[in-house]
Amino acid sequence: MIIGIDMMGGDYAPMEAVKGIKLYLSANLRPGRLLLIGDKVQIQALLKEHSISEDLISIVHADEIIGMHEHPTKALKEKQKSSIAIGFHLLASGKMDAFISAGNTGAMLVGALFSIKALEGVIRPAISSIVPKTGGGTGLILDVGLNADCKPEHLNQFAIMGSVYAQLVLDVDNPKVGLLNVGEEEGKGNLLTQATYPLLKENKHINFIGNIEGRDVLLDKADVIVCEGFTGNVILKMAETLYDIGQTRNINDEYLNRFNFENYGGTPVLGVAKPVIIGHGISGARAFMNMIRLAGIMIEKEVMKKMKEELA
Amino acid sequence: MIIGIDMMGGDYAPMEAVKGIKLYLSANLRPGRLLLIGDKVQIQALLKEHSISEDLISIVHADEIIGMHEHPTKALKEKQKSSIAIGFHLLASGKMDAFISAGNTGAMLVGALFSIKALEGVIRPAISSIVPKTGGGTGLILDVGLNADCKPEHLNQFAIMGSVYAQLVLDVDNPKVGLLNVGEEEGKGNLLTQATYPLLKENKHINFIGNIEGRDVLLDKADVIVCEGFTGNVILKMAETLYDIGQTRNINDEYLNRFNFENYGGTPVLGVAKPVIIGHGISGARAFMNMIRLAGIMIEKEVMKKMKEELA
Repeated sequence: MIIGIDMMGGDYAPMEAVKGIKLYLSANLRPGRLLLIGDKVQIQALLKEHSISEDLISIVHADEIIGMHEHPTKALKEKQKSSIAIGFHLLASGKMDAFISAGNTGAMLVGALFSIKALEGVIRPAISSIVPKTGGGTGLILDVGLNADCKPEHLNQFAIMGSVYAQLVLDVDNPKVGLLNVGEEEGKGNLLTQATYPLLKENKHINFIGNIEGRDVLLDKADVIVCEGFTGNVILKMAETLYDIGQTRNINDEYLNRFNFENYGGTPVLGVAKPVIIGHGISGARAFMNMIRLAGIMIEKEVMKKMKEELA
Repeated sequence: MIIGIDMMGGDYAPMEAVKGIKLYLSANLRPGRLLLIGDKVQIQALLKEHSISEDLISIVHADEIIGMHEHPTKALKEKQKSSIAIGFHLLASGKMDAFISAGNTGAMLVGALFSIKALEGVIRPAISSIVPKTGGGTGLILDVGLNADCKPEHLNQFAIMGSVYAQLVLDVDNPKVGLLNVGEEEGKGNLLTQATYPLLKENKHINFIGNIEGRDVLLDKADVIVCEGFTGNVILKMAETLYDIGQTRNINDEYLNRFNFENYGGTPVLGVAKPVIIGHGISGARAFMNMIRLAGIMIEKEVMKKMKEELA
């Protein structure tokens, strides 16, 4: 397997990407090659500086960089020699099996949706986030921002994609799917959740447990939390502040520490044909290591293939 | 001023309501009379047991109780002798100036919307919640559940109602209004927030600071957070679990402790003609005391009158 990494994306690129690669290789987490995309001279110098052997590494030079605040579609179109554009070209043409970047999120999403395309049958790809549960487990919430407005059939597919991901990547057996809502009983909710409930109830591909409320998000009630990307995004960003609050206030609590996004690395785009993982702009070495690790798992477990089967 | 209290509402009624009244009267927080609605024999026995003087107290007997899980509209209609039905009757006919209950939330909302009616010009009343800010201040978020689906003009009115409340009740000078969204820039968001932004921008009655994101909810960026009742409800219920997490995990942190709803007591219905405050079913003495206190402030500061002026 070949995992492609945008070395120029993120606030601390390429340094932290290189350090993340070192962590990954030292831990000998998985076999397979890494394909580093970016400024070749800079990358080679950093690899040398950090005594990283190039045995498992190839470098593809990229002349340009898409900045964090550039317009995604415009930048991708005009900067064909950027690390992100080259990455998607390599991924689409089968030269690599997954693509990771902590760069311009919009450009990564546009690339994922238009270079790689959706899995057959997927109406709307989604992005998901890990939810640390108070009971010790790990849940998944989706969509967390790709689709600010959704229809019931989108949420129904998110439930399937989330279940496959939870099962294969998070090792949750027969994941419990909850519909995020404002009340527990069937019939509660806004127009969207009211119309989504019956679809989830009849969906044979998932283990639907009914509505869950805001108070259940961090509890063990559901493993996969389904919602539109507006509410999901607000929750995700609010949850991320829990870690900051813990740090700022010197609360050294194991649970709050689990909200540190570096533990998870990045957000995979679900519903596209190949693994694309988008990291935070402020990704450090640990986040990069975890993104590479996640890409490896997604390739090895054939997550996309399983999703396609379940969605058929 | 006369503050009416449903003595039969809530999981620990009427005991905790009585204890709350004792706390309120002992603190001598504000003048005015309390009108207690419920089983007269029970209430009198409890007042005596807790050595509460009846000087500032009147009791109106109620034969029936609306249970926590009864159908709101049906129960209100059929149980005319219930404490909630009598309370709304007394409030509507001017026999009291505010009504508090920790009973059936749905029945309280139906009563507030149909017995008391909306303030002139208000399209949709809303319920709000206090947001403890990491900087020490206190913000407000609305709607938190009354309107699961909203239109831009609803959110525009929530901004005005929230601003008046924040100014008069929370003592925030020229409150900063933020539109809860998935991105900071104008133009970001779902269809609703995209269409709401220009209305808020042109609204002369508020101090609009633009979009805020999930990561800003607990920070000082905005004093009044405007959103539809779906997202608001999810956030509110999720935030309430922060207190529980703090307790369960023995994190004795001042900030997390502020998420204890007992500090605030209850949720006022904003946009109706008179103060109606709805408490949690699990309200204890402290929550009752704070609800009575809040009702007093809302009457004294003429919050509804000011809202009506700003909305005109």
